[in-house]
Amino acid sequence: MTLADRWLLPEGVDEALPEQAAKIEHLRRTLLNLHQSWGYQLVIPPLLEYLDSLLTGAGSDLEIETFKVIDQLSGRLMGVRADFTSQVARIDAHCLKEEGVQRLSYCGSVLRTVPSGLDGTRCPIQLGAEVYGHGGVESDIEVLSLMLQTLSVSGLSNVVLDLGHVDIVNGVVSACQLSSEQESKLADLYRAKDLPELERYVDTLALSEEQSTWLIELPRLCGGQEVLEQADTLLASISAPVKEAIALLKEMAAAVAQRFPTVGLHFDLSDLMSYSYHTGVVFAAYVPGHGNAIARGGRYNNIGQVFGRSRPATGFSTDVKALVSLAEVEVAKSKTVVSPVSQSVELWQKVNALRAEGYQVIESLDEVTASEADYKLDLVDDAWQLLPR
Amino acid sequence: MTLADRWLLPEGVDEALPEQAAKIEHLRRTLLNLHQSWGYQLVIPPLLEYLDSLLTGAGSDLEIETFKVIDQLSGRLMGVRADFTSQVARIDAHCLKEEGVQRLSYCGSVLRTVPSGLDGTRCPIQLGAEVYGHGGVESDIEVLSLMLQTLSVSGLSNVVLDLGHVDIVNGVVSACQLSSEQESKLADLYRAKDLPELERYVDTLALSEEQSTWLIELPRLCGGQEVLEQADTLLASISAPVKEAIALLKEMAAAVAQRFPTVGLHFDLSDLMSYSYHTGVVFAAYVPGHGNAIARGGRYNNIGQVFGRSRPATGFSTDVKALVSLAEVEVAKSKTVVSPVSQSVELWQKVNALRAEGYQVIESLDEVTASEADYKLDLVDDAWQLLPR
Repeated sequence: MTLADRWLLPEGVDEALPEQAAKIEHLRRTLLNLHQSWGYQLVIPPLLEYLDSLLTGAGSDLEIETFKVIDQLSGRLMGVRADFTSQVARIDAHCLKEEGVQRLSYCGSVLRTVPSGLDGTRCPIQLGAEVYGHGGVESDIEVLSLMLQTLSVSGLSNVVLDLGHVDIVNGVVSACQLSSEQESKLADLYRAKDLPELERYVDTLALSEEQSTWLIELPRLCGGQEVLEQADTLLASISAPVKEAIALLKEMAAAVAQRFPTVGLHFDLSDLMSYSYHTGVVFAAYVPGHGNAIARGGRYNNIGQVFGRSRPATGFSTDVKALVSLAEVEVAKSKTVVSPVSQSVELWQKVNALRAEGYQVIESLDEVTASEADYKLDLVDDAWQLLPR
Repeated sequence: MTLADRWLLPEGVDEALPEQAAKIEHLRRTLLNLHQSWGYQLVIPPLLEYLDSLLTGAGSDLEIETFKVIDQLSGRLMGVRADFTSQVARIDAHCLKEEGVQRLSYCGSVLRTVPSGLDGTRCPIQLGAEVYGHGGVESDIEVLSLMLQTLSVSGLSNVVLDLGHVDIVNGVVSACQLSSEQESKLADLYRAKDLPELERYVDTLALSEEQSTWLIELPRLCGGQEVLEQADTLLASISAPVKEAIALLKEMAAAVAQRFPTVGLHFDLSDLMSYSYHTGVVFAAYVPGHGNAIARGGRYNNIGQVFGRSRPATGFSTDVKALVSLAEVEVAKSKTVVSPVSQSVELWQKVNALRAEGYQVIESLDEVTASEADYKLDLVDDAWQLLPR
């Protein structure tokens, strides 16, 4: 093994040196304080769990992304978490006995077997918040607002928000009585936005003219708020869930426009952008210069069902390292003091008193460090005094 | 799989619910602030690395403790870190080009294949600090002082400090010209403190009377500071490194006595208590009610050699979760306010202004949450006002 090999980090794995680490720590604290001020309580789920628990209810996307190890003690498979959502759902279902609304937040490392998205990280520092026990639009708006506030406090501007709802595609597909094979082919065409091929395919399905129109027009429901009016005209008669989903998107769009007037709103009603566990509204925030969503979330009711407690849930998550790379995070610098290596109790006490006051006091082990300090400690008239350098 | 199975966490793996999580986060910040005020810069090494890099220079103890996974992208073995030391050494050797003294600190999760020690955790939150580029006793004293200050700031009292030095056993063994097989047998007997069997074994070795006395008396050099005087008489003539090691222990003991007069000092000169990478002084702190060392450290020069930069190094680490379980960590509570779900821009702005001022403002999604607040927001004379509940 060469020296260079020893230095090399795996693809999608990075480390933070002092300047960047200070920014990450600063932003982490700022955001956890923000979440706390909104009433969200921090929880710290384990980095490692039995695979069964970790993947329960989370869908197969996560199974591929999860690193697996054997537990030497039990012989069972364990996984290193690739996402917090099912862990926090378990905490809500099992450990917190409270009825009523529960607001939880978290921040920690996750690992992924494959780099995700354009920035290609395999070790994000995931930060997120979730509301359990409330199924109405109010909690969706609260969580979405907290996500946008999180981005705003991080110093990001020019945010564009994608909003969608899984019941719209689901309602259209179900009204057309498609087989699961047809549904999956359709999803591929929607993802590729291949409209000519879509029309050819829909023609082969022997649907009514109205049904064909729904399937062909759905991916064109893509753009600003006017899309919701078009959706009302085109789709609202399909079923109650579709109508309610459009109404919910309108209400959320109005709240965003009122609270975050600078955030751009974008709708793509044929897009299913998130993990398969979502059951209602889904949203994702984008900023220029970052190909991936910088934050995403949505409603995922009943995720706690497998843990014996089926509760409505809605939440979002983001990556603190990605936020730091996009934002201008300013970390206040302490005043620095250089001190001789302490030989006396008096100096030791003086040094620690200054540290407690907020100074950074460095014992002078070498000349290099000493030369950069703002102040020095010198013995003047038998007392240690702080002097400018 | 039953419900109970899904709830079960693996042995040695735990999660922190809100009350405990708040304490962990509070202590984490307090201690990182402390380290910053001593001049230590935070770094964030990756949770995952190629196994070669991770285990380089760290000794085989860590190999057993490290979870291994296959990198799907390169086919190479990777490990989830079980310890920060070699990672931080690599950061010093490779990424930070500075000559002179470098002070680094870190805090994060590590994973271990087997529960370690009596508290049996496999997922501690390791926090530590290291000094690179200084080989003198001053940096050993600085790091040891920071470790004791870390425990003190965490609210631990009745700390007992074990101090030792690898050059003492090494010097005695080398003066007796033992084979590596004999050395390993001796280490077992020292570890077991089996003095009768030790005497029988030493008799079989065909050593001079003086050499036999060294080997037999070494494990009796165990107790308070008087041990160092006895060691001087018994061992100082063996070699310069042994003499220097005893002198260094005396100097460190004097510094601890001056700076931390309530800390108990204990010496066991036949004990090699730490990882095999240590090259000088080793130390460990104990508190009542915790069978393991609550913090440990020592000097490990040249660990960066395999990364192309051989530098003196000394450091310590502890586990934030263990500290929280032993100390009385008090987290200040915010004043809580319950607010109606915000419908107007005025209420939204009022709510966020209060949050920025330090209040925890909770939108009233249900009655349970609302009933616990200190204040409420009410519309009085067309303005939102903060009123006691």
